[in-house]
Amino acid sequence: MSQLKGACIIGQSGGPTSVINASAYGAIKTALESDCITKVLGARHGIKGVLDDDLIDMGKEDPKELEMMKFTPSSALGSCRYKLKDPDEDDTDYKRILEIFKKYDVRYFFYNGGNDSMDTCNKISKFMLKNGYECRVMGIPKTIDNDLAGTDHCPGFASAAKYIATSVMEVYCDAHVYDTGMITIIECMGRHAGWLTAAAALAGVKGCGPDLIYLPEVDFDLDDFTKKVKDIYEQNKNCIVAVSEGIHDKDGTFIAEYANKNMAKDSFGHAQLGGLAAFLANHVKQATGAKVRGIELSLLQRCAAHCASQTDIDESFMAGKAAVENAVNGVTDKMVGFEREMVDGKYTCKIKLFDLSIVANTEKKVPRQWINNEGDGITDGFIDYALPLIQGQTKMTVEDGLPRFVHLKKVKAEA
Amino acid sequence: MSQLKGACIIGQSGGPTSVINASAYGAIKTALESDCITKVLGARHGIKGVLDDDLIDMGKEDPKELEMMKFTPSSALGSCRYKLKDPDEDDTDYKRILEIFKKYDVRYFFYNGGNDSMDTCNKISKFMLKNGYECRVMGIPKTIDNDLAGTDHCPGFASAAKYIATSVMEVYCDAHVYDTGMITIIECMGRHAGWLTAAAALAGVKGCGPDLIYLPEVDFDLDDFTKKVKDIYEQNKNCIVAVSEGIHDKDGTFIAEYANKNMAKDSFGHAQLGGLAAFLANHVKQATGAKVRGIELSLLQRCAAHCASQTDIDESFMAGKAAVENAVNGVTDKMVGFEREMVDGKYTCKIKLFDLSIVANTEKKVPRQWINNEGDGITDGFIDYALPLIQGQTKMTVEDGLPRFVHLKKVKAEA
Repeated sequence: MSQLKGACIIGQSGGPTSVINASAYGAIKTALESDCITKVLGARHGIKGVLDDDLIDMGKEDPKELEMMKFTPSSALGSCRYKLKDPDEDDTDYKRILEIFKKYDVRYFFYNGGNDSMDTCNKISKFMLKNGYECRVMGIPKTIDNDLAGTDHCPGFASAAKYIATSVMEVYCDAHVYDTGMITIIECMGRHAGWLTAAAALAGVKGCGPDLIYLPEVDFDLDDFTKKVKDIYEQNKNCIVAVSEGIHDKDGTFIAEYANKNMAKDSFGHAQLGGLAAFLANHVKQATGAKVRGIELSLLQRCAAHCASQTDIDESFMAGKAAVENAVNGVTDKMVGFEREMVDGKYTCKIKLFDLSIVANTEKKVPRQWINNEGDGITDGFIDYALPLIQGQTKMTVEDGLPRFVHLKKVKAEA
Repeated sequence: MSQLKGACIIGQSGGPTSVINASAYGAIKTALESDCITKVLGARHGIKGVLDDDLIDMGKEDPKELEMMKFTPSSALGSCRYKLKDPDEDDTDYKRILEIFKKYDVRYFFYNGGNDSMDTCNKISKFMLKNGYECRVMGIPKTIDNDLAGTDHCPGFASAAKYIATSVMEVYCDAHVYDTGMITIIECMGRHAGWLTAAAALAGVKGCGPDLIYLPEVDFDLDDFTKKVKDIYEQNKNCIVAVSEGIHDKDGTFIAEYANKNMAKDSFGHAQLGGLAAFLANHVKQATGAKVRGIELSLLQRCAAHCASQTDIDESFMAGKAAVENAVNGVTDKMVGFEREMVDGKYTCKIKLFDLSIVANTEKKVPRQWINNEGDGITDGFIDYALPLIQGQTKMTVEDGLPRFVHLKKVKAEA
């Protein structure tokens, strides 16, 4: 083991989750306690904070206050969706990152994000290696989408899944209150992977699940869907459907696009989806004449820290902690991930390291065998996979009847 | 005190809340323990269950299971929006109700609902009196809208308020994560009274409140709103707005109607609102070019039992209990309500009885002095009023990481 002394930078990137700060806190706390790490710097708004020399000194924060990060949703350090160019085409950003690393003697870089962030990690790591600058780079995953390759599951998924399953149960109670009948369409996030929408099926464990569940893993047929909803409604006077925002027809056209042909795209070229629940609700209303509600879980599903899974919080913290411990022990160019072990039928979760190059820019989808043959429901395989992850209620501090989120001083770092 | 022996019927009506079942449970439990009450009947789907002779025997339920009603959202007995005709015009329904009351020897009628339900109570009470049938009729209020006259507040409001304030805090964290700016429009329920939307201001107590809040109590001007959002966004690169579904212009036209001219109406003649957040989001996007999110809290705000206020649960139970106790003691034709008492600066809540005729069909609005002069924010008067109501986390049972809701056997009652 080669001992490497120097500062570290921790940055957060991509869309928020309920527990991304638990991971950042795991990394910050462990780094602050490490003998090798001389200074712990937080990058404001991810890699942009490095490029802009906008770094804060985490050592200046009150330790008790810092602990509140564990229960604060969204990215406390700020996030970005900045995509680094290919260094072979334009290395301006990389040169600037190296300059900042040198300025603060940064020898450890921890980046907390999704697929794109692992790609950022990978490129930075390779550039530093090529330029002979010793720096250990570790990716700490987060994504409600649960679509990172390798790892059994991703920090952030379970809390969103717990919120979705809980909300579906509550909506189920609400939607069954009248004897006059109702159809409810619940839209969950997930462009290409249906993990979150599949989580709606967990409500079925308590007898309050959706009748139909549609994921982007299977082509969606509007006529077939409409017929099924109509049949179920006619039989039960009620029908609850969960759909992924990213469901698409056999030609690959998003169903949300049926309603809106001119969609904006974000800086990664992802189509900006939305309005699917309203579109399907209106379509089904025309076809059935029933009372129909379209419910979009929107941002709520990724930031509902009050309904977070304590298992997810603990594992997210553990991921951040493991990233620092491994880096200090000489590991670099890896993403920290999870491996599941069933001991006497009981779920346990262990840290496993994955090559950044494998993780970056690949998406893990819901296996076809966890979707039923008809493509409109979820099998027990998924339930067995997901149920252990949503156990435990958040130990969040409550003040004035409301969540107590972290307040950081954000003291500007000095070189 | 005149002792009156006989059966009782408990019914639930109107839109669900997170705690309407806590009230019903308070009434059912107290009635089951009462010497005067010979049988406790639950009406399925409110007054329709009486008309259809669709009654269940609450005494046949397992007492431990029944207790789960305290933490189960929506109406466990089923609800309706059936409006009784004026008995002077058509007394068919009333005659049928009397017939059923006689069949089961019903001497106590407890109705758990909002304004329309208190009107139903009032009409039934008067009809029974006129026909010389001794029956004590008590209204047990519920409404997330908090718009019932007389009572300090309504069971159900506080839990919805807690959910809204919590969600606004979480969305605040999410919306401030990027440095690229964002405008968020959050739509809360409330056709004519803005209590729920005002609850968004509670998030401000924790530093995560909306920049602008619009209630139906004040006329809404789209141009003025757009200018304010634009100004705030230009200054802070961020703007969060909470709006009531029922905001309207000075001519009384709902802003939601701007988007949809042909709205359906429910059986009470209420316009079916919706899509306001999406309309305003789109409008503001056109005007600013900013990234804009419209979030409709939809059914979630009225059924999110996992985020219920334990104060609300306890008070709701107390309301149901008090209705039975008072009826057994000879009281009739009243609604159970709340009176607030501040003892050494500490909030306490006492039961107070109100005439049904006063409560029925009047709406209590947010006092003008609790809305700022500009009509775009909430004053401390409201915060002082609402904050004590949202205290305490639900003591709900959690199983498999998910809420444990009641499962009733629903055994058909025998006469």
